[in-house]
Amino acid sequence: MTNQDQSVGALGEAAVLAAILEVLRPASRAAVGPGDDAAVLDAATGRVVATVDTLVHGPDFRLAWSTGYDLGWKSAAVNLADIAAMGARPTALLVALTVPDDTPLPLLTDMAEGLRDACAALAPGCAVEGGDLAVSPTLTIAVTAIGLLDGTAVLRSGARPGDVLALAGDAGCAAAGLRILFDRFRDAAGNPIAVDASSLSVPERAQLAAQLRPEPPIGRGPVAARGGATAMMDVSDGLALDASRMATASRVTLDIAAAALGDDPATALSGGEDHALLAAFPPELALPRGFRRIGVVLPRGETAVLVDGTPYAGRGGWDPYREWDAAQG
Amino acid sequence: MTNQDQSVGALGEAAVLAAILEVLRPASRAAVGPGDDAAVLDAATGRVVATVDTLVHGPDFRLAWSTGYDLGWKSAAVNLADIAAMGARPTALLVALTVPDDTPLPLLTDMAEGLRDACAALAPGCAVEGGDLAVSPTLTIAVTAIGLLDGTAVLRSGARPGDVLALAGDAGCAAAGLRILFDRFRDAAGNPIAVDASSLSVPERAQLAAQLRPEPPIGRGPVAARGGATAMMDVSDGLALDASRMATASRVTLDIAAAALGDDPATALSGGEDHALLAAFPPELALPRGFRRIGVVLPRGETAVLVDGTPYAGRGGWDPYREWDAAQG
Repeated sequence: MTNQDQSVGALGEAAVLAAILEVLRPASRAAVGPGDDAAVLDAATGRVVATVDTLVHGPDFRLAWSTGYDLGWKSAAVNLADIAAMGARPTALLVALTVPDDTPLPLLTDMAEGLRDACAALAPGCAVEGGDLAVSPTLTIAVTAIGLLDGTAVLRSGARPGDVLALAGDAGCAAAGLRILFDRFRDAAGNPIAVDASSLSVPERAQLAAQLRPEPPIGRGPVAARGGATAMMDVSDGLALDASRMATASRVTLDIAAAALGDDPATALSGGEDHALLAAFPPELALPRGFRRIGVVLPRGETAVLVDGTPYAGRGGWDPYREWDAAQG
Repeated sequence: MTNQDQSVGALGEAAVLAAILEVLRPASRAAVGPGDDAAVLDAATGRVVATVDTLVHGPDFRLAWSTGYDLGWKSAAVNLADIAAMGARPTALLVALTVPDDTPLPLLTDMAEGLRDACAALAPGCAVEGGDLAVSPTLTIAVTAIGLLDGTAVLRSGARPGDVLALAGDAGCAAAGLRILFDRFRDAAGNPIAVDASSLSVPERAQLAAQLRPEPPIGRGPVAARGGATAMMDVSDGLALDASRMATASRVTLDIAAAALGDDPATALSGGEDHALLAAFPPELALPRGFRRIGVVLPRGETAVLVDGTPYAGRGGWDPYREWDAAQG
């Protein structure tokens, strides 16, 4: 079968869905999984958490850089992180794909495998339980994640002066990986080209992986909630920018210690997409495993975020996707 | 302010989100609505139902024919119907929008009003509780609907020989409306043009409304579940085609009486998008209010669907969007 014969348009919806469900159905844990009008999920704790986020071909990814597996993994990971950031356990994903007619089927089955494996690795007990497939000029992956709360939701707005500011997960790695892609894997005209991993050092490979296939500390979310976190959010747009959001929601100032941010504090502060968990804890409690202290919560001052006591003046994040030039690659 | 100044690209994400949330936030009923990492929903019954469906500019709608309000309304209605078809009460929507940079803001705030009003009219107690906004070359609206089950989910697979086949809602109206659009509101080159409602008869206006702003009988879903329905689904792709899916899932044959389908049984059988509820009930039970008998469930025969005892030979649906020609309009 040639690649052309394997396009979504040539195969038709029923065949494409069947191939995708062959990957996803065995992992289903729901009372009713894919196949009926809707999925039926257990919600024994009585409190459900739900979020949605879309990856769009062009502004959010390039097919020259990301495999289908990468895209499936990342689209799961970023939404699982939002559930974890509420202190909840993810239990189900719904995946709405819009795909051009000429999309090769293996891209979609690879995506299904990435979604399945990210759930298994990052959030055991969670699986794809439903979705939708539509034809569109633009490839997009909209993932809805649903989770259960065992206790109370941890919001952005609960940080109190005197709390310890802590982080679980990476800061700056995914941004460093994105910089590698834009600096080293584009042709003379600026178009993305395939990644040659053999040209990269071991740390660079880790940064690339953090960008293309992030591994946010999903399990730390419920741990933080049980451990007394007063506020929590996932860091998707950059530590300094997201910290300013928590500070504003909580009406406090957050003072971050640059020395706690590793070798490259500037990138750690500005870089997004690691989906680390930023949380505040009362000072009398021991930090839960997986969290490290990166600063302190102060009464609200003139600026939302300080770094070593000085107003943060860095930029919100080096993000070539955001100032999107309409290229897709 | 000119239309250009009001484009999504010129205004920026924060301003666009603020305008949308101004419409949606007052209707929120969730413990935590829009604004944090995820929404927190009450799930007191312990059983949650979830579904997602995407409307794509081009294959699913044309901006010359649909207002933003229509699009918001329809994207809510079609997903509410999937929740109802499980026998559940819709409680929350999450809306993931992907929009071109030059999209005028009023299109999005109109869409938010349509989403809000469809919830209020069709599923009181349900509201938009979260979402995502992304830039994309293609306008898409992916709506996740979440609902609660008071009893057991009603699946497609439970119809039994001897059951009465019943329908709540319209059959063929939305398809007739779509035919009006394609036949009468395109220019010589085939491009969609604005609808002149004054050229339409009263019944034609109702058909057009059924296509652009459908009103599926959402409340009938839980009523059918309490009333003993053995199987249920919403009719999105045409009565005959969806009936064949129920027949196959239940391993039965469904015999539909053409006389029960009104003036134009052919369109009722082939036409989709009304999102009526098709259900089977044990013969000894009275049909719940809102349902009318349209046939009977037989032991599985050679064909999945009969009409007046004869194998259904009509087509699956007159659907110019489906054999999509890449036009957007």
